[in-house]
Amino acid sequence: MDLHILDHKLRVTSISKTGLQQYTHPLIKLIFLRNRTRCKFFSLTETPENYTVVLDEEGFKELQPSEHLQVEGSTWLPLNVVSNGNTSSSSQAVGVTKIAKSVIAPLAEQHVSVFMLSTYQTDFILVREKDLSVVVETLVEEFNIFREEGGESVPVHSQDACNGLQRNGREVPHATVHPVLIPENQFCVMSLDPDTLPAIATTLIDVLFYSNSPKEGASVDQDMKCIKFFSFSLIDGYVSLVMDTEAQRQFPADLLFTSSSGELWRMARIGGQPLGFDECGIVAQISQPLADSDISAYYISTFSFDHALIRSHFCK
Amino acid sequence: MDLHILDHKLRVTSISKTGLQQYTHPLIKLIFLRNRTRCKFFSLTETPENYTVVLDEEGFKELQPSEHLQVEGSTWLPLNVVSNGNTSSSSQAVGVTKIAKSVIAPLAEQHVSVFMLSTYQTDFILVREKDLSVVVETLVEEFNIFREEGGESVPVHSQDACNGLQRNGREVPHATVHPVLIPENQFCVMSLDPDTLPAIATTLIDVLFYSNSPKEGASVDQDMKCIKFFSFSLIDGYVSLVMDTEAQRQFPADLLFTSSSGELWRMARIGGQPLGFDECGIVAQISQPLADSDISAYYISTFSFDHALIRSHFCK
Repeated sequence: MDLHILDHKLRVTSISKTGLQQYTHPLIKLIFLRNRTRCKFFSLTETPENYTVVLDEEGFKELQPSEHLQVEGSTWLPLNVVSNGNTSSSSQAVGVTKIAKSVIAPLAEQHVSVFMLSTYQTDFILVREKDLSVVVETLVEEFNIFREEGGESVPVHSQDACNGLQRNGREVPHATVHPVLIPENQFCVMSLDPDTLPAIATTLIDVLFYSNSPKEGASVDQDMKCIKFFSFSLIDGYVSLVMDTEAQRQFPADLLFTSSSGELWRMARIGGQPLGFDECGIVAQISQPLADSDISAYYISTFSFDHALIRSHFCK
Repeated sequence: MDLHILDHKLRVTSISKTGLQQYTHPLIKLIFLRNRTRCKFFSLTETPENYTVVLDEEGFKELQPSEHLQVEGSTWLPLNVVSNGNTSSSSQAVGVTKIAKSVIAPLAEQHVSVFMLSTYQTDFILVREKDLSVVVETLVEEFNIFREEGGESVPVHSQDACNGLQRNGREVPHATVHPVLIPENQFCVMSLDPDTLPAIATTLIDVLFYSNSPKEGASVDQDMKCIKFFSFSLIDGYVSLVMDTEAQRQFPADLLFTSSSGELWRMARIGGQPLGFDECGIVAQISQPLADSDISAYYISTFSFDHALIRSHFCK
């Protein structure tokens, strides 16, 4: 299989719930006005805690610093596994399950933190730029590794990246078992033709920027029987949306599409306290048992917690 | 003819060019999300100086005070002339021309300040609530006056409003002749089915909120050969748009409609220095000669200047 290091330098940020209003202007530009920005990688995920915004440096320039914006200090690079047909796989699973054993587990063993972003189209594995040499060294036996540079795929060899096989010097942390919350609402993973994005603009704006108005805030489910979770991404021209069935009903049914089976997904939110960005192995803990049972799963990391989406019929 | 005092209490405000970004959230709500607001009277006009926002009290609540928001201190009431067919008129003119002699001139003689807002559908004459008694007394001979209250039209008689024929005690000001600027761009006055507003949302958002990005700011026409002027209003469910032909090209041609003749309009901007809100007779000065020649004209007051729109074929 091929592993591509994509040509995006990403920042992972968080906007507070009360601060979203003042970021409406740049966010609407990044979502809807492609002619006005060079941003090619944009992801916005609403959770009960905050809005996680992952975006490239062109997009990051649009976000003015304020007390409402938290920025993780590192530059992150997205990795993407492309099955080139040479490696046969018996798995019919999709999402993070496909890469659990080949990517997630080895990186966890090398204590490399990953930030996962599954979309309708693919799964992005974000790693810190400074960990790249360890990543390459760890994965080079299993993958043909390419670095995307200005539209070209340049093969990467272990020594190119790691300058003498240096290893990640981090201590092996004590493996933490995090509490997992399984809310009752069901989710869909969807896409739409980016040219039809204007047709859902007012609905998407309503859901993203106005669904937390004080009126409705009063009815927020405090014990999170249903979780507020909505994810929009526009990456290299592809749109991906993750929303629960209640939000889905607000959108015109003829524009959004999902996989032919139209399956619904249940969520497992990982973490009782915010997870931070340094602990390794969280994705591995979740994805390996799913891979052992060949259960498809999407995985979306956010600023505070991780979220796995598992096909509803596997959840009892 | 009938004169209706509409059931809206209006505020006239101005948002600075640099402050628009922080008002994006409430303005988009007022323009596009009718289910989330009780605002029934909303008008936003961009001029080179600022954005004039005229809106009812429900809408005004959405605008947080800031250094970027100027608010005229009075409450204004919109008047609307309805031709009930009983009064024959030889005039084929539209817009402010129709009401120049019957409304504008008499109010100017009584030193009542008016703020004009012509739309595709009609012409609103805004007067200060505290001037209402003088307005009624001045116009009651010419009009059947009704006050709209909770959906009902209640007849108003002179003594109801003015409590003993008190007159506006203002001094007659020295009549000022204001400089008039006639930019070269041509304008269209248009409407669209409010149900199709979502279909032009991204274009309208782009034009209203992003067309002053620094990139384009550099090419702003400093001597105003072409003036930046764009007006959007959503009043009692009716949409009206005034834009120049360059802005018009950005919108899908099949959704916006104009009068069957599709005529273009030239603008006369009145005022060298900001006009303020207290001087009377400005609209009268402009509209009376037009009425004498039966020349149609729209008239849009903004926070700083007044703007008359006159059919292009009358402009040499």
